[in-house]
Amino acid sequence: MSARAQSAPGVARASARGPGSGDFRVGLLGHGTVGSAFVVLLQQRADEIERFNGRRPVLSGLLTRTQGDFEQILAGSDLLVELMGGIEPAREYLLTALRAGKDVVSANKQLLSQHGEELFETARERGVRLRFEAAVAGVVPVVRVLEESLSATPIDRIHGIVNGTTNFILTEMTKGASYAEALAEAQRSGYAEADPSDDVSGRDAAAKMAILARLAFGAPVHLDDVRYEGIEHLHGDDLQYAKEFRLGLKLVGTAERLAGGLSVRVHPTLLYPGHPLSSVSGPFNAVTVESRTITEITMSGPGAGGPQTASAVLGDVISAMIPPAQTPPTRERLTIVEDVESAFYLHMEVADRPGVLAQVAQVLGLQGVSIKSVVQKGLGENARLVMVAHPILESRFFAALEMIAGLDFMRSRPRAIRVIEAEYV
Amino acid sequence: MSARAQSAPGVARASARGPGSGDFRVGLLGHGTVGSAFVVLLQQRADEIERFNGRRPVLSGLLTRTQGDFEQILAGSDLLVELMGGIEPAREYLLTALRAGKDVVSANKQLLSQHGEELFETARERGVRLRFEAAVAGVVPVVRVLEESLSATPIDRIHGIVNGTTNFILTEMTKGASYAEALAEAQRSGYAEADPSDDVSGRDAAAKMAILARLAFGAPVHLDDVRYEGIEHLHGDDLQYAKEFRLGLKLVGTAERLAGGLSVRVHPTLLYPGHPLSSVSGPFNAVTVESRTITEITMSGPGAGGPQTASAVLGDVISAMIPPAQTPPTRERLTIVEDVESAFYLHMEVADRPGVLAQVAQVLGLQGVSIKSVVQKGLGENARLVMVAHPILESRFFAALEMIAGLDFMRSRPRAIRVIEAEYV
Repeated sequence: MSARAQSAPGVARASARGPGSGDFRVGLLGHGTVGSAFVVLLQQRADEIERFNGRRPVLSGLLTRTQGDFEQILAGSDLLVELMGGIEPAREYLLTALRAGKDVVSANKQLLSQHGEELFETARERGVRLRFEAAVAGVVPVVRVLEESLSATPIDRIHGIVNGTTNFILTEMTKGASYAEALAEAQRSGYAEADPSDDVSGRDAAAKMAILARLAFGAPVHLDDVRYEGIEHLHGDDLQYAKEFRLGLKLVGTAERLAGGLSVRVHPTLLYPGHPLSSVSGPFNAVTVESRTITEITMSGPGAGGPQTASAVLGDVISAMIPPAQTPPTRERLTIVEDVESAFYLHMEVADRPGVLAQVAQVLGLQGVSIKSVVQKGLGENARLVMVAHPILESRFFAALEMIAGLDFMRSRPRAIRVIEAEYV
Repeated sequence: MSARAQSAPGVARASARGPGSGDFRVGLLGHGTVGSAFVVLLQQRADEIERFNGRRPVLSGLLTRTQGDFEQILAGSDLLVELMGGIEPAREYLLTALRAGKDVVSANKQLLSQHGEELFETARERGVRLRFEAAVAGVVPVVRVLEESLSATPIDRIHGIVNGTTNFILTEMTKGASYAEALAEAQRSGYAEADPSDDVSGRDAAAKMAILARLAFGAPVHLDDVRYEGIEHLHGDDLQYAKEFRLGLKLVGTAERLAGGLSVRVHPTLLYPGHPLSSVSGPFNAVTVESRTITEITMSGPGAGGPQTASAVLGDVISAMIPPAQTPPTRERLTIVEDVESAFYLHMEVADRPGVLAQVAQVLGLQGVSIKSVVQKGLGENARLVMVAHPILESRFFAALEMIAGLDFMRSRPRAIRVIEAEYV
């Protein structure tokens, strides 16, 4: 335990650990935004992963531009995580690792969309795994779902919002911002880089769609096979006109199977309100998989961000550590909590006379219930009073409700329905 | 090949096949809606699964109320699929199969939510797998995502629309139908059974939330731990009032980790428009997983239906056949199709004079472009003409666009954006 605590903040010394110690040695190539977040997350979650899976993941080596030796890291690791980006030397490192019989996790969409066949072929020949959930849609687990849940499902078409930067910009433009204003806001908020050209040109989305198309159709798809068009030329007034047709604008990637073969493309696209991608706003990603067998599945979540991407990388690392989908053990026993907080909608039919609203408000106030909004409507002698209350312990809300039910001006029993606000979006 | 073709329409004769023949023998318990759909799907997909995974899944036995012998099916199968429903004899059969060291796939939410611990414990002791993707949210792969992609992610809360029947009824009520009318429509459309009480009481959703809560928090959760409330008592006018607050009504299951433990519950719940579940309509299911690490992931898809559920069951069967998530082999080479169909939005600034719309329409008609809707706005001497065109080969649309660009009344270059309509929802 003391050796472990000592090694926790940095890189474990490979020499101090023999094989069979129960550790799962993870070598990391690259230490940028995602790499740093991955190191932090790995250390935070190591105890829990060890408790759950029996093996403890440890960082066995780190290669940066100025530090570390690739051959040594390779020799001292059970698995390599590649978060360098770019084609070379990432390609050479991954091929070397796969040939050496090591499992590999990568988030490198450019590499996978341009040299995927070579890498997949090498992994298959050597019987090792190449995992890349974080390369496509951040934390949205579309790679795993396509590889596993849908491996028996013939897929007809995929639509994806796979670039969070452009989705953020388009969301801002829909609210009235110009392209330049929206881009500046994206840069201020950390959703766009100083040089956003790979994102706004559609090239980033094209690389991700090439990877998804390969997974969905089992056929080689290269980035060069993907037609793409960016959002730089869009006019704000097109977005306003589109609203008159109830259409919303997204940068949509499409991969579809056609009679003559396959088409993979990325374009600014207008969506009707019923489409599952039409409600995806801000820096989110989402992918819809269509199949005659299952109609469609949609998955959405944050598309970028160091901690989110690192979480997808760690998921891949864990799946390489263990035979997946074992029966999950009971980790702990948790007490069932009976009284929880909730916001409420409250509907009352009351006599339409002075002081009614004040009395209701007073009873609610006594129990600590705070009102967010009220609508009152006269109905001849009666009135209808409808409110939304801020979150409160349910026991307190229902105590107030019983008191209100007993007030002499109530015309029928008050009705309550719980309310959930959007928390993250 | 001839032996295979012979056995395809029915049940393979176990006696005719020795072990090591490359077949993966699937014994099926139950032959209702999902069971029948599973048999059909298994036969349809067997070739593709064999090509992809090297082993061919064959139906090695079928147990119905009137046919088949459990012990014999168990002995002749590599894996059992349980689609009988109910507690007994399903529980006894599954325990016997797990104790005999067989992998098991089940879609039985009542059994898993009431006897899950016993089943999970037995599977763990024997080192076999118990899979149950189809028990929770139809084809939405939430079980696999929780078990695998998110196994390293500390989960704070899950919200789920996990009953398609009630979501269909509430969607109809939001459009103005009464509860009785909406229920009758659900029964007519096959989304509700003759006796809908398990659905409309919230009990079905409660069982599914118990299973999800166990997966998310790794703690035992029994159906009896779940508070639930149904939709039978809802008033149509509450839905109308809720609209004034921009709130939509869903039957929402919640499982959340709290300071004191855990709460799992199902209630009719109002959602603000930004919430990822608020746009889930009709017989769909959706689950949102919230975590500080990843903010949130939402997955949605059809919640029920024989073929959809059977597809989830088959996904579980395949994952038991193979070491999952191997590098996917190239199955085929597909040609990239350059010219595809798309609907278009078309924006034109034109001189405001008679005959302009007619000429534009004529050019579009020449190329076979059919107009779905038009908005025209006067701007002094000029007018803005905005259209949405029905799907057409892109080459033909762009040919029309070039012709329009050359017309003498055009005030600037016409602009086009692709449009996607909601296909399934």
